[in-house]
Amino acid sequence: MKYAIGVDIGGNKTKYALLRDWKVVSRLSDITPKKKGDLIKVIKDDISKLISFPKSQLIGIGFGIPGPLDKKRRLILNPPNVKALSNVHLSEIMEREFKIRTKMENDVNCFTLAETLMGAAKGFDKVIGLTFGTGIGGGIVIDKKIYIGAFGGAGEFGHMSIKFDGRKCRCGNIGCFEEYASEKFIWRESGVSPKELEEKVKKGNKKAKKIYQDYGQNIGVGVSNLINILDPEVVVLGGGIAKAGSLILKPIKKEVDKRVLLTHSKKSVKIKLSKLSDFAGAVGAALLLK
Amino acid sequence: MKYAIGVDIGGNKTKYALLRDWKVVSRLSDITPKKKGDLIKVIKDDISKLISFPKSQLIGIGFGIPGPLDKKRRLILNPPNVKALSNVHLSEIMEREFKIRTKMENDVNCFTLAETLMGAAKGFDKVIGLTFGTGIGGGIVIDKKIYIGAFGGAGEFGHMSIKFDGRKCRCGNIGCFEEYASEKFIWRESGVSPKELEEKVKKGNKKAKKIYQDYGQNIGVGVSNLINILDPEVVVLGGGIAKAGSLILKPIKKEVDKRVLLTHSKKSVKIKLSKLSDFAGAVGAALLLK
Repeated sequence: MKYAIGVDIGGNKTKYALLRDWKVVSRLSDITPKKKGDLIKVIKDDISKLISFPKSQLIGIGFGIPGPLDKKRRLILNPPNVKALSNVHLSEIMEREFKIRTKMENDVNCFTLAETLMGAAKGFDKVIGLTFGTGIGGGIVIDKKIYIGAFGGAGEFGHMSIKFDGRKCRCGNIGCFEEYASEKFIWRESGVSPKELEEKVKKGNKKAKKIYQDYGQNIGVGVSNLINILDPEVVVLGGGIAKAGSLILKPIKKEVDKRVLLTHSKKSVKIKLSKLSDFAGAVGAALLLK
Repeated sequence: MKYAIGVDIGGNKTKYALLRDWKVVSRLSDITPKKKGDLIKVIKDDISKLISFPKSQLIGIGFGIPGPLDKKRRLILNPPNVKALSNVHLSEIMEREFKIRTKMENDVNCFTLAETLMGAAKGFDKVIGLTFGTGIGGGIVIDKKIYIGAFGGAGEFGHMSIKFDGRKCRCGNIGCFEEYASEKFIWRESGVSPKELEEKVKKGNKKAKKIYQDYGQNIGVGVSNLINILDPEVVVLGGGIAKAGSLILKPIKKEVDKRVLLTHSKKSVKIKLSKLSDFAGAVGAALLLK
């Protein structure tokens, strides 16, 4: 039997997945401490908790990181959501601790890999993944492998320009997808959380319905861009909206139907919600060892 | 010695390239007749003219087509710029005529392949190609192979949405890259041809300069989207603007510098003008046989 551990370090929570022969056998969720020393200690402790088998059967530990990595130097640069990891050689620290090989990858790349190998896009060769939260993350998996681009920067979907209304993104530019399709949009337009807005929509509130529809349409514009550019078989959507079901899928699909140029692609492409949900990133981090 | 012939069928002109041992040894340009029968006759005649060597040395003929193909059925669907080719089994017709294998591919995919193997992006593994004319064409070459996507539809860059100002594209949607970065933009804003506008800019005309700068900026927005999504090593720009040199490259690079998120990608990516120019498509069509 072979074990692999995946760790998905998020802004508030860190998720862990233990895989035995590439099947999920255990999950764990813990806080993400704000200080570097605390964070590293918590991760070491949590990983140790998961190792309840002969250590010789562990083949490695994968880490999903929310932000830019210098893959050559195996260094985490400056993830805005987990500042404690800035300039940290996490891979090396953990290799020294557990005497085992480690891998590190962008968290949404891990998400997309997990959904491709075990989730909503299982069996498909050309998959795009997006996660929607305070920002938008993106991943591309081609022929079961993460496509990282030439310099490790592929998948920055959140900062593609989709429309201009003068609104400035945190990156300094205008028009960014993130401004119109991350949860920021919902807060800005409705003043309530995505979950509260969903409740209002389900109760038939007209204003809420309009905002939710605009939101879905905006997502659809960005997703259509990606389909026109990359022509995938499946687009997997994760993050908060993955729980909204057809409520969000309907306006997205409507926009995709309007905007994807090639008839054959439009008819064939599947827009799906995440199947692995909150643990997709951790599972994908473990699958990096495959 | 091995020969390959490439044919690039454009709206007005058809270009031919003869390659000997994968080097260009001959070029030919002819009109594209408007009627199907005439077009096929002209292509047959022109190919015959190029075969001035023992026919056993010809390994095949490649065709670059401006528009949607059904690759499984090897059928040209409905290219808006060459209506005479609608529903034509060009590959089969030419195989019957010349008793040799043929290949067929989107013309901008051929352009990008040629620039990657022999032109501006020679030696690079992740390349994006764009051609600017009355529309915008796109191609992606990864590891020296054309990336066509799951259903043959990848590279429809012209219809990604980049900004909205209510202007409708011929596809029926608003915001399309093509509306802001094809030559249509220049005609619309200046009332003159791209070449005339360039002349005015060179003479120091302020209004012309502003339009040209906006044009470059618009191209830059779309190119930045593609870099944020695909993280290529090189972006090759072809079509009319390939002759404008630094005049157009400067505003494009300025926008890319503002909009590409990952510092490493921004510093490393190269934006280049086509080196093979008008015959890139034909050369790339021949390279399909490689």
